[in-house]
Amino acid sequence: MSVDRVEITEVGPREGFQFEGQGVATAGKIELINTLAKTGLKRIQAVSFVSPKMVPHVADAEEIMAAVDEVPGVEYEGLWFNLRGFERARATGRVTLDGQITVSASDKFAQQNWRTDSSGLAELNRDLLSRYRDLNLPVGLSVAAAFGCNFQGRVEPSHVLDLINEAAEGVARAGLTLEEVALADTMAWANPLSIVSLIEAVRGLDVAPGLRLHLHDTRGLGLANAYAALSVGVRRFDTAIAGLGGCPFAGHKGAAGNIATEDFVLLCHEVGLKTGVHVEALLEAAHVAESVVGHPAASRSLKGGHLPRGA
Amino acid sequence: MSVDRVEITEVGPREGFQFEGQGVATAGKIELINTLAKTGLKRIQAVSFVSPKMVPHVADAEEIMAAVDEVPGVEYEGLWFNLRGFERARATGRVTLDGQITVSASDKFAQQNWRTDSSGLAELNRDLLSRYRDLNLPVGLSVAAAFGCNFQGRVEPSHVLDLINEAAEGVARAGLTLEEVALADTMAWANPLSIVSLIEAVRGLDVAPGLRLHLHDTRGLGLANAYAALSVGVRRFDTAIAGLGGCPFAGHKGAAGNIATEDFVLLCHEVGLKTGVHVEALLEAAHVAESVVGHPAASRSLKGGHLPRGA
Repeated sequence: MSVDRVEITEVGPREGFQFEGQGVATAGKIELINTLAKTGLKRIQAVSFVSPKMVPHVADAEEIMAAVDEVPGVEYEGLWFNLRGFERARATGRVTLDGQITVSASDKFAQQNWRTDSSGLAELNRDLLSRYRDLNLPVGLSVAAAFGCNFQGRVEPSHVLDLINEAAEGVARAGLTLEEVALADTMAWANPLSIVSLIEAVRGLDVAPGLRLHLHDTRGLGLANAYAALSVGVRRFDTAIAGLGGCPFAGHKGAAGNIATEDFVLLCHEVGLKTGVHVEALLEAAHVAESVVGHPAASRSLKGGHLPRGA
Repeated sequence: MSVDRVEITEVGPREGFQFEGQGVATAGKIELINTLAKTGLKRIQAVSFVSPKMVPHVADAEEIMAAVDEVPGVEYEGLWFNLRGFERARATGRVTLDGQITVSASDKFAQQNWRTDSSGLAELNRDLLSRYRDLNLPVGLSVAAAFGCNFQGRVEPSHVLDLINEAAEGVARAGLTLEEVALADTMAWANPLSIVSLIEAVRGLDVAPGLRLHLHDTRGLGLANAYAALSVGVRRFDTAIAGLGGCPFAGHKGAAGNIATEDFVLLCHEVGLKTGVHVEALLEAAHVAESVVGHPAASRSLKGGHLPRGA
């Protein structure tokens, strides 16, 4: 691998706060986001604008966004699935507005997570796209459960490709540009071979210039999957500080977190890829994350230590 | 990867008992070994015959070997570095006798671990080889700290190749056959690229038909490294149930364990490689390991769950 750059979106705050329950105080969330903003990470998914009825402990999204430091060069991102969420994000004046739409490769997971099915999600997306057109936002499509589902089993790649094609047509009909496709292994069903084959198939569709991966390390294969993706040239990843996170509606028995930012950054640096992240500051942020959520991190390199640069 | 078989040596008992200190009762060690013997694992490194002066809590090796069940088809292995250790293993009548010799790619680690340097280890190996010749044992060479060292930094591959060549010449001089070279990433300095390049370089030496990897997951890259090795055809691995283990003389601040057997087995099965291991029995053994050492396992798939076969 030649020396080039990996773009990391830090999703630990949003994922962690949704998964950890009521135990995380708003002040702690703000502290973690501010600490992360000083690590060299350029994109921090800070909050979720999903319904507080569904996930009560993310109801402080506006309060958090009003309080976080303004760090030049850092984008604060949010998550939403409907027009109400988007307008809440917009009203903060602090959240980066992107044209995000989401589909689910598993209808059973959609029922768990959104209390709706594919056609319900498609309707939400049509409303969002119509609004994104007013603001001329480039669109990013996320495919949830792109590799498999705890409720439904393994997902056929052909089904994922159909979903992406269909969504891409909707984006085109709305007169917008599909900038990126993100494949989310929401429930950790991917393996290095399925990662590579789905990436190649999605590239073959040629519907968007960007490709991003959102990997969970629920079963221990997260970093192996990330490496497989790096080795075929994927350069955009979601990761979570201290391995925080997990979907509260994913039916996990135990650990559910994303791949840990500090482990992924070590992997990148070790194989000669730049991330722009300062390792010492990142490990400090991971300690803050542990302290904010009140339990030890699932990441390894936080305890085992990174390796000296250039050694 | 076509469907073929991975040979796993379960090193959790030996690694775990040396690392966990005095807290593990002999009865618990025996229980874990007996549980592992029913999982389909064929090689269990059960005990260590290193000096009880150096590692007092492995002094019960003979007691353990006298007590463990005799499970047909399961080989019970031991670890030794000198003639005294070998004779102790032999006296049990239960430990598989192989012609193991060890070199260290780091002299500073050798000082920590064996209180000697390269020439001291070479002398131990000469004594061992002379005894192995009496018994006509095929030789396995392990290279400790083959990728780097917490005390000395990164290790040059050329140095590892020199060590292997030198040891291979010693084996040939003793009139014995070098059956295998094992590369041990004792302190977790490897990355997927260094794994692949050292494997290819060692194969280029053409000194032994077998190649084995012993990986630690101290920094989170263990499974990514294992996958990189699998992808270039390595089929022999040491792993440890529940991710137990670590060298007590390796200077680790935190977690130090080997890659977890249950995570590695999941990886193998997911990419179409057979292990002969029964997943349910293995997860049960991991629970026993947690209970025996008295703290939660570092592995992920134990908590996140394996995936349904063939799903």
